[in-house]
Amino acid sequence: MATPPLKGIISYPVTPFAADTGKLDLVALRRVTDALVEAGSHAVAPLGSTGESAYLGEAEWEAVCETTLHTVAGRVPTLVGVAHWSTETTVRRARLAERCGATAIMMLPLAYWKLTPAELERHFAEVAAATDLPMMLYNNPGTSGVDLSPETVVALAEKIPNLTMVKESSGEVWRFRAIRELSGGSLSVYNGSNPVALEAFRSGAAGWCTAAPGLLPRWCLELYDAVRCGEHERADDLLAVLLPFLRFIVAQGLPRAIKAGLELQGRPVGPPRSPLLPLTEEETERLRELLALLDAHPLLESAAVGAEGATG
Amino acid sequence: MATPPLKGIISYPVTPFAADTGKLDLVALRRVTDALVEAGSHAVAPLGSTGESAYLGEAEWEAVCETTLHTVAGRVPTLVGVAHWSTETTVRRARLAERCGATAIMMLPLAYWKLTPAELERHFAEVAAATDLPMMLYNNPGTSGVDLSPETVVALAEKIPNLTMVKESSGEVWRFRAIRELSGGSLSVYNGSNPVALEAFRSGAAGWCTAAPGLLPRWCLELYDAVRCGEHERADDLLAVLLPFLRFIVAQGLPRAIKAGLELQGRPVGPPRSPLLPLTEEETERLRELLALLDAHPLLESAAVGAEGATG
Amino acid sequence: MATPPLKGIISYPVTPFAADTGKLDLVALRRVTDALVEAGSHAVAPLGSTGESAYLGEAEWEAVCETTLHTVAGRVPTLVGVAHWSTETTVRRARLAERCGATAIMMLPLAYWKLTPAELERHFAEVAAATDLPMMLYNNPGTSGVDLSPETVVALAEKIPNLTMVKESSGEVWRFRAIRELSGGSLSVYNGSNPVALEAFRSGAAGWCTAAPGLLPRWCLELYDAVRCGEHERADDLLAVLLPFLRFIVAQGLPRAIKAGLELQGRPVGPPRSPLLPLTEEETERLRELLALLDAHPLLESAAVGAEGATG
Amino acid sequence: MATPPLKGIISYPVTPFAADTGKLDLVALRRVTDALVEAGSHAVAPLGSTGESAYLGEAEWEAVCETTLHTVAGRVPTLVGVAHWSTETTVRRARLAERCGATAIMMLPLAYWKLTPAELERHFAEVAAATDLPMMLYNNPGTSGVDLSPETVVALAEKIPNLTMVKESSGEVWRFRAIRELSGGSLSVYNGSNPVALEAFRSGAAGWCTAAPGLLPRWCLELYDAVRCGEHERADDLLAVLLPFLRFIVAQGLPRAIKAGLELQGRPVGPPRSPLLPLTEEETERLRELLALLDAHPLLESAAVGAEGATG
Repeated sequence: MATPPLKGIISYPVTPFAADTGKLDLVALRRVTDALVEAGSHAVAPLGSTGESAYLGEAEWEAVCETTLHTVAGRVPTLVGVAHWSTETTVRRARLAERCGATAIMMLPLAYWKLTPAELERHFAEVAAATDLPMMLYNNPGTSGVDLSPETVVALAEKIPNLTMVKESSGEVWRFRAIRELSGGSLSVYNGSNPVALEAFRSGAAGWCTAAPGLLPRWCLELYDAVRCGEHERADDLLAVLLPFLRFIVAQGLPRAIKAGLELQGRPVGPPRSPLLPLTEEETERLRELLALLDAHPLLESAAVGAEGATG
Repeated sequence: MATPPLKGIISYPVTPFAADTGKLDLVALRRVTDALVEAGSHAVAPLGSTGESAYLGEAEWEAVCETTLHTVAGRVPTLVGVAHWSTETTVRRARLAERCGATAIMMLPLAYWKLTPAELERHFAEVAAATDLPMMLYNNPGTSGVDLSPETVVALAEKIPNLTMVKESSGEVWRFRAIRELSGGSLSVYNGSNPVALEAFRSGAAGWCTAAPGLLPRWCLELYDAVRCGEHERADDLLAVLLPFLRFIVAQGLPRAIKAGLELQGRPVGPPRSPLLPLTEEETERLRELLALLDAHPLLESAAVGAEGATG
Repeated sequence: MATPPLKGIISYPVTPFAADTGKLDLVALRRVTDALVEAGSHAVAPLGSTGESAYLGEAEWEAVCETTLHTVAGRVPTLVGVAHWSTETTVRRARLAERCGATAIMMLPLAYWKLTPAELERHFAEVAAATDLPMMLYNNPGTSGVDLSPETVVALAEKIPNLTMVKESSGEVWRFRAIRELSGGSLSVYNGSNPVALEAFRSGAAGWCTAAPGLLPRWCLELYDAVRCGEHERADDLLAVLLPFLRFIVAQGLPRAIKAGLELQGRPVGPPRSPLLPLTEEETERLRELLALLDAHPLLESAAVGAEGATG
Repeated sequence: MATPPLKGIISYPVTPFAADTGKLDLVALRRVTDALVEAGSHAVAPLGSTGESAYLGEAEWEAVCETTLHTVAGRVPTLVGVAHWSTETTVRRARLAERCGATAIMMLPLAYWKLTPAELERHFAEVAAATDLPMMLYNNPGTSGVDLSPETVVALAEKIPNLTMVKESSGEVWRFRAIRELSGGSLSVYNGSNPVALEAFRSGAAGWCTAAPGLLPRWCLELYDAVRCGEHERADDLLAVLLPFLRFIVAQGLPRAIKAGLELQGRPVGPPRSPLLPLTEEETERLRELLALLDAHPLLESAAVGAEGATG
């Protein structure tokens, strides 16, 4: 099995919009993206759910893709979310991602009409065939409405050579082992469910696809380091402290929560795009408490220089 | 209560694509649309689920909107599906529909991220405020992932003056009565679930939103006439014969089934757009049988001139 | 097709428990049962969900079965709910029902472990084979966790000769037509979803299985008479007035709501059995309003003698 | 926090029935129970889902309870599943378990009618108050139809002093941490989802509630020892080999799969009770392969004396 092109902390940037006009704020996007790289993310993944790609026009989508990849500039690998209901648009996005230098593409089986197995297979196969990039299949039943079992995922991968990675957001950690076992280890697995971050690594996930580094990169990286180095007690302690925060951002919706947190950290990126609303005052207050607790926590104190950020 | 702007058989055209290039086929779209008007549809509703709006680029969406409304040319009212994940895009579509002369707009609460009640309300309110057109709220839990109860629908309508119509596709016919009762009759209700066509009318639905007239306009119109004139036995008989066909097109997905049927009727409009696939041979054969049965059925024989179409 | 053994208003009695000891109150059960027969019910159906059969010990179950059937004493047909997780217990109940003179048995596919199709078929077949009574298959996905499609129901009936009736509580009224069509009319269909009472009759349901006559027998009977005589406007008017009540008793749970209503009508039968709790004060107040509205309603005034009950 | 009364491998025995008469086979039950204790189980838990308690009459339930506890005879702690739809029956079972010397009782929130929060709380509180035993709340949405969130579980425990343990079978491993954190560590958590056995321990589960030791006690115990001793690589290796077996028994239903396996191991206990059917021939063949693979596997070879069982 070849080394997978992605591993570790795969950070999902938000997409900033100007607070007054609502337009894409590419300057802020560069800042956000650069911060993720500088903080030590092992990869950057624009245009996922966190990036509000669902609310972007096609030209905006392209601008975010280009700007992010040019800002990363090869310092770390990149993973571009290309999913769209239409195969044609997904193909176009995949090709643009490749031209911009993406390391890999990620594809959620979005389906307006419920797809037959034959339709699903052709959809993935056509997009995969359109580029030379490795493709990550993204299973997220809560968002896509379709649950791809480990057996289905492995069967698709056997027919589609560049489908070499699977991101699981079902939260069922046994799937990480099952996919690796059923594929004879040829598929690399990634975790997209924040609350099971640690268990996923322990079950063989090569990486954690997460928006959390937008606010707390050091916590995420330390967690990964601890588990990678076999410091299991420290890993458990870190996750125990981090878990309420992770559950909170998932419950509020990632773009809403991360954008509110960036505002609290003095790094405003504008509001989420309508129909999404900013966090309410009460929710913001809860987030402030969660961040304050983490900022002051002794588990990361030793590395006090460059604390996670001064929460407003 | 004012007379609702729409009633009766509200026909949903498919969107034709060229068999070779996959491009929008506006000539065929005009033909399809005109056929629905000529056959006696009481209204035409482009860009619904049947119209594969999920698979159209924004420029294509606009072309379909303009072409359909110009082809109808005011002969019957029109209802344009404008739903998009983003409020901004939905607003833009609503305004275009208004400029093109639409009678009303229809809006499904599509949500990539699950919306809070406040987000849902603002989403509808902003789109409604963007035009002077009456708006039809479209409840279809199977497609949108969110089920709006009669109480929620009525509460929304109380805050949004031009939300005056509700299309129910949950299939739970008691909702037609409940919505009318809870709104004091100020909301008109429409049925979007084909298999309950007759019961919906009997429960007070003002109209039937359906793709079926694409293949069988006379059956749909006769059903409506029968129920409207109190010919209950005839209505029951018509639905009994029609039901297997209605269940079939719902089970296969409306664009796939209607496009296959048009091909069988010698009126080809090209394939559905990827990821959708045409009906399989076996499915097509089943559709041929269903259409043949209906073509030859004595219930419509009396009006033999201008039979439903010679199925290939 | 033979005449089905059951039709019209099939009334489900509650099971009274003594307010002080919680023990089965067979005296009150006789009173409740007799009232349903005297009011004109076309059949009586003990030991359904309304009868809290889930909370009865086996000896209590037998006592309710015997007492109800002896009280009815053949004045109208009877339908006994015999479902249990275990085939053996279901068989024993079916045989007891037969010995007590039941007209028919009703069977919900209760399943602790999810059953395979083969297990489901054997379960029904063994119970059916244990008696000479006709059996009603009861499809209620909300309670049983398994949804039996019209195709599945008809396939079962083809293998099990005395499976001749189907009660549908899914609320999807198109199934009434579909089951009759697929079975060539050999299966009689019954409605178990109160809010679609009228549409179900109009779609071919032979009867309405309902707890509502426990409080409002005349409304239910008048609705049936209206639809049977083709007085469609009157039927619509009756249901419009009745619908808020029907939705209320379904939402609160039938035994809780009917028992509270009997208390309001001065005919106390004790509380529901734990874990069920009586209606809260607020819920009871709402029920009082709903009953008062129906008691005073002019639609039934003409038959003023013997009003529905003086609501305390 | 006190030491929880249960930890490690908590083994769930099947309930044997005579192959010819279908009657309870108490001799075989003693044999099965004794084998679980002798093999080193840290606790024995009769009358769970695996024990087919749903298919037992009340006298049978009592016989299984008494026989199992008398066979265990205090050699290891015991946990008795007491759930029933009715509060009264659950109370009676809890008291019998206490009289027979159970260490603790387990309670799934079974609900025929959907319970309100007040009903659910009273149900648990009444059963808890009926004995002095510690109670384990069992969350299994797939079986009970109700999902109790960590917040709900902790709120219940705050009101019910002897509710001190929670068994989670949702498979969402983050809940183990969340429940411990929200309860300040006062609640002990147990895992009931076989495929996440290892991750659950790593997330802080005190024990694994499982039917697997019925066939493979050594594999389960070795897994627990490995994770307890921090031999993480060995634990991962063990689970990797065990996972296909664990997924298989879950997919087939535990009583069906374990009983078939005991037959293959030359230790027959009769068939599952109707409506359950024995494994099909094809399923049995697959189980034979899975067991053969595990029997011969070098990971457990070192301890070759007393191999897992000679699979027929």
